[in-house]
Amino acid sequence: MSKNIKVGITHGDINGIGYEVILKMLGDPRIADLCTIVVYGSAKIASFYRKGMELPQVQLNRIDSASDAKDGAFNIINVVPEDTRIEPGVPAQYAGQAAFAALEAAVADLRSGKIDVLVTAPIDKHTIQSPTFTFPGHTEYLEASLGDGGGHGVENADGSGSNKALMILCTDTLRVALATAHMPIAEVPRALTKELVVEKLETFNTSLRRDFGVHAPRIAVLSLNPHAGENGLLGKEEEEIIAPAIAEATEKKILAFGPYPSDGFFGSGSYRKFDGILAMYHDQGLTPFKALAMDAGVNFTAGLPYVRTSPDHGTGYDIAGKGLASEDSLRAALYMALDVYRNRRREDDATRNPLRKQYHHKGKDSDVGDLSK
Amino acid sequence: MSKNIKVGITHGDINGIGYEVILKMLGDPRIADLCTIVVYGSAKIASFYRKGMELPQVQLNRIDSASDAKDGAFNIINVVPEDTRIEPGVPAQYAGQAAFAALEAAVADLRSGKIDVLVTAPIDKHTIQSPTFTFPGHTEYLEASLGDGGGHGVENADGSGSNKALMILCTDTLRVALATAHMPIAEVPRALTKELVVEKLETFNTSLRRDFGVHAPRIAVLSLNPHAGENGLLGKEEEEIIAPAIAEATEKKILAFGPYPSDGFFGSGSYRKFDGILAMYHDQGLTPFKALAMDAGVNFTAGLPYVRTSPDHGTGYDIAGKGLASEDSLRAALYMALDVYRNRRREDDATRNPLRKQYHHKGKDSDVGDLSK
Repeated sequence: MSKNIKVGITHGDINGIGYEVILKMLGDPRIADLCTIVVYGSAKIASFYRKGMELPQVQLNRIDSASDAKDGAFNIINVVPEDTRIEPGVPAQYAGQAAFAALEAAVADLRSGKIDVLVTAPIDKHTIQSPTFTFPGHTEYLEASLGDGGGHGVENADGSGSNKALMILCTDTLRVALATAHMPIAEVPRALTKELVVEKLETFNTSLRRDFGVHAPRIAVLSLNPHAGENGLLGKEEEEIIAPAIAEATEKKILAFGPYPSDGFFGSGSYRKFDGILAMYHDQGLTPFKALAMDAGVNFTAGLPYVRTSPDHGTGYDIAGKGLASEDSLRAALYMALDVYRNRRREDDATRNPLRKQYHHKGKDSDVGDLSK
Repeated sequence: MSKNIKVGITHGDINGIGYEVILKMLGDPRIADLCTIVVYGSAKIASFYRKGMELPQVQLNRIDSASDAKDGAFNIINVVPEDTRIEPGVPAQYAGQAAFAALEAAVADLRSGKIDVLVTAPIDKHTIQSPTFTFPGHTEYLEASLGDGGGHGVENADGSGSNKALMILCTDTLRVALATAHMPIAEVPRALTKELVVEKLETFNTSLRRDFGVHAPRIAVLSLNPHAGENGLLGKEEEEIIAPAIAEATEKKILAFGPYPSDGFFGSGSYRKFDGILAMYHDQGLTPFKALAMDAGVNFTAGLPYVRTSPDHGTGYDIAGKGLASEDSLRAALYMALDVYRNRRREDDATRNPLRKQYHHKGKDSDVGDLSK
């Protein structure tokens, strides 16, 4: 095993800002001290963007398989034909297919252990659609591809082997997870069940413990309706679904609180008092998150046996090829992938076979147990 | 007419933080240089809270009618019996009735011209309910009480006499209006029609011009669904309702843009580029607004012939009587009421009978027209 964590990075939509933010991030050579990078993309397209925007000169080591990745270097695997077109800012089927080729190759390598974690640059949810990709986004594709656990990889500390993905948006101080994600508002009330909220709370709780190293995480649950339903005046879901879900989670020893009306919760600064916040739907969680997080937000897919993060922005067609994109969110995504990977290893090491260890360890006080086993 | 603008302030729920924030605000005597204050409440309850929390000594001039208000002073009208109970932090029917008595008296005085503008302290939407008050909040009560225009007061500059209230949350730099307000999320998609969005855009546009002095306001319209419906993948309301409403508003010479997905809109800072933002539902507008505005937010009821503002916080039962409440939002509400009142007068003066003036004014260049007529 190489000494560095191997990070796969997909190039995303090749007409978006993917290459710009990847090259800007790799322009800082200190990244190579932290990990081994494997970009799934095209050296030719990277060169096109680098020259066009006068981006930093990045030494990319061309390889055919992630197994050949040079340790502590920036490696690249070609996943698209040499004659692939590039039209910055233009949504196009071929660009979506190029994004999918990178994703497919990286996910295969993740499953077979050739890379340790995955960081994905943004895709265009329209142009990537094809007979082999019929998902509303990365999260759902990864849940289907990696959710069954596969033969490799870190397993859940509690052995539950949960395979449901949970989208968590995070900064160093704010973590917002979504009970429902990519669906019309009209479908949210129907989709929201007590079972769903409990399941998301369990996944979130496990992730906060294992992925973020918070050992007794406090989770705030937002309400669906304005003013938390105002005791039924403005909706019944709080009384009939969310509060019972919180009660059930509490019985399962999860520190869940709420439901809180989202406007007062974010307005009063209450969000600072919790380790995680479970929002009921996409915009409820992401709107205040992005308003507060600005460029530092990371999208982390929890609940899967593999670590995947991404920046919280989109393809940025409107600024593609102009040199205006910020690499801050991608860099934060990389750091978070490394942190989560290390936290999982540490948590798994620390909690592996706790009973057996207690039973066997009968040395004197001066004996120091080897906790790494 | 007195030289100062007469501001009516209702005490709100007497077991909440109303008196605390009113007395803290009036603790600054410079407020009296700006306007004449008429508090609708109880000198005895004011005294109870002042002593209990060692709040600033405020000279309150007791009067029986707002017509007797001392100019540039802090006046108070008793609207509740002397033996009214007070239990800080306790939701109670009698406290809701006291809140309603103040509101009813102030609204009557607003209609008859005894006060110029209204600033309301927070009510408890539950305890205020009674056979005479069956509204989800202040805004709806005022729409019903003042919406028909009445016989007095400033009329709309465009003569439309619109009587539909529009809830606008504002700071000096951010104004968020709501297309739908106090209803369950499940009802929002049904309530949202093209006609409603156009009507709200017209009211918002008129208010930005007349109340805020922005003469060609740019209005951003948020989408209902995540990712603005992703071209129909995540909902049809953008294509079928919101975009056509924006097109119709544009034909009416309103500078409306969108629909924008709310997370990216607030995350990218785009909100800074618009004079107003129309959100489709309560939490979509209020959550990012409060996250960004913190203590400076004001709730302004646009679309009515009278000016009414309020702080953007609630009764604050959890901190009532503890001296912890901030008066910043109430002070901002007072300032905004004065600004809007003056802007309306100025706009009405400047745009009154524009054609007649053009036709009659035939003096030499050295003649200066009297624009106040």
